Amino acid sequence: MYADFRHRMPLRVRWAEVDKQGVVFNAHYLLYCDVCVTEYWRAVGLHYPDDFVAQGHDLFVRKSTVEYFSAAYYDDELEICGRIAQLGNSSMRFVVEIYRRRQYEAVLITAELIYVYTELASRTAQQIPNEMRARIRVFETTVPEDETDANRAG
Amino acid sequence: MYADFRHRMPLRVRWAEVDKQGVVFNAHYLLYCDVCVTEYWRAVGLHYPDDFVAQGHDLFVRKSTVEYFSAAYYDDELEICGRIAQLGNSSMRFVVEIYRRRQYEAVLITAELIYVYTELASRTAQQIPNEMRARIRVFETTVPEDETDANRAG
Amino acid sequence: MYADFRHRMPLRVRWAEVDKQGVVFNAHYLLYCDVCVTEYWRAVGLHYPDDFVAQGHDLFVRKSTVEYFSAAYYDDELEICGRIAQLGNSSMRFVVEIYRRRQYEAVLITAELIYVYTELASRTAQQIPNEMRARIRVFETTVPEDETDANRAG
Amino acid sequence: MYADFRHRMPLRVRWAEVDKQGVVFNAHYLLYCDVCVTEYWRAVGLHYPDDFVAQGHDLFVRKSTVEYFSAAYYDDELEICGRIAQLGNSSMRFVVEIYRRRQYEAVLITAELIYVYTELASRTAQQIPNEMRARIRVFETTVPEDETDANRAG
Repeated sequence: MYADFRHRMPLRVRWAEVDKQGVVFNAHYLLYCDVCVTEYWRAVGLHYPDDFVAQGHDLFVRKSTVEYFSAAYYDDELEICGRIAQLGNSSMRFVVEIYRRRQYEAVLITAELIYVYTELASRTAQQIPNEMRARIRVFETTVPEDETDANRAG
Repeated sequence: MYADFRHRMPLRVRWAEVDKQGVVFNAHYLLYCDVCVTEYWRAVGLHYPDDFVAQGHDLFVRKSTVEYFSAAYYDDELEICGRIAQLGNSSMRFVVEIYRRRQYEAVLITAELIYVYTELASRTAQQIPNEMRARIRVFETTVPEDETDANRAG
Repeated sequence: MYADFRHRMPLRVRWAEVDKQGVVFNAHYLLYCDVCVTEYWRAVGLHYPDDFVAQGHDLFVRKSTVEYFSAAYYDDELEICGRIAQLGNSSMRFVVEIYRRRQYEAVLITAELIYVYTELASRTAQQIPNEMRARIRVFETTVPEDETDANRAG
Repeated sequence: MYADFRHRMPLRVRWAEVDKQGVVFNAHYLLYCDVCVTEYWRAVGLHYPDDFVAQGHDLFVRKSTVEYFSAAYYDDELEICGRIAQLGNSSMRFVVEIYRRRQYEAVLITAELIYVYTELASRTAQQIPNEMRARIRVFETTVPEDETDANRAG
């Protein structure tokens, strides 16, 4: 629900993002999630991807899930809400909820993205650095730590 | 696996679909799935969306899940494979697997889309017509029928 | 130049809009222009497309020209500046200039879009209504009137 | 006109490329042009961008112009026709015409793209290599040579 999120950003639906049915094309919600994630890192104090690549790492999406409850329309003013709901060993679960502005009782879209912190040279999963964990924890007041989650997600 | 699919279509990765990392942007795989679904209906003998809308119905995506195993690159020749893996009462589960051409042992991407057959006027889920079921069954030699699946998926 | 524009809007370059060269893909600048035009109509006091379609009309692009002087990069904060530079009988010439924020001496991209005010039923060009002309004139302090322009552009 | 083109490629309009008006969004025609250019180089015997970048060069779009005569619709089978109409010193003028398949008397869209052959290190225009000119000439039976064109276009 809306109150769960500290990170929220406005987004106006563009003409080119709406299909013949007059609704946002289903794949574009993942694009909205991506924009939300970029802004999330900025809010946390990191710049994607420079601050990751500079360390020889990057984040790769391992799995994405979107549930479509209600459509967004052309010119809608949306709010894209994102948070890291779970920090594994090498993976993180990013949760997104999309609302129409000022209508926060009814979620339009929920999404979940599993990212894996990866070493670019070896293309292998690496432990998320403690400094990054700390930053996320400071930003998100409550992030459940579950080291076993890493096995499931990444 | 590749042999599971009767419906397969070639797709060449476009320059504009590849991001700064040189790989297909994660949301675009759902676009590829959508192209595959359109061609699937044509293969089955239906034209999307006309043959659905003419009956006052349409298919809406209720949930999409994508798992990313390996990246597709610019100019790759892919094969997008799609099938209806489950026919519920009002919903259908469409499964997609994406391969690099001639490398069918390693799947790059798997996806699952739950579609709900919906009456446009009332925006409510409707029973998938028998004629459509029959067409799909003829095309897919084995589609497990599971009426209870509708409750779970749609 | 930047000072020519009353209508300016910020736009942050998205990850998915940047290609393998690390720059915004050339076609996406027309998308940015489109977003700018939508916001232009709002600034002028009209809602696109409802206020046009309600009258049985719409605006169709007849010609677009983009000149690429310097590239925009991922995460750049751009300013998209748009104005109607010429009002013909049935056509209007919309000029766009794109700058990187706070670097207004060097334009990245210039574009020109010729729109034709069209009756939907007959698909024929129609005279732009006086009320719309008046609104645009009020917004743009100086719009050169050139009735002969309509022949050239639309 | 259709007969002017040796290079022609089929392209099926995707659902996501069509807007609320049911027609291909205006910016997407530049995407189609880009796909056509990629396939053009393949037809000529070059692989874009590898064969260019390997020499420390790349092609950058300097100007694009699109004229919209008639719309393409969802699921239309188009033919995208492209040719190099002019070879300057460092620039080339690429002309595209888009037809609906089997309706070659009425062009839907015409486009012109000016590319500049650029040295990546210095970001300066360079003379198009003779070997590339020869390849293009062999492919296009008649390409007017106009060295002065380079000044105008690039």
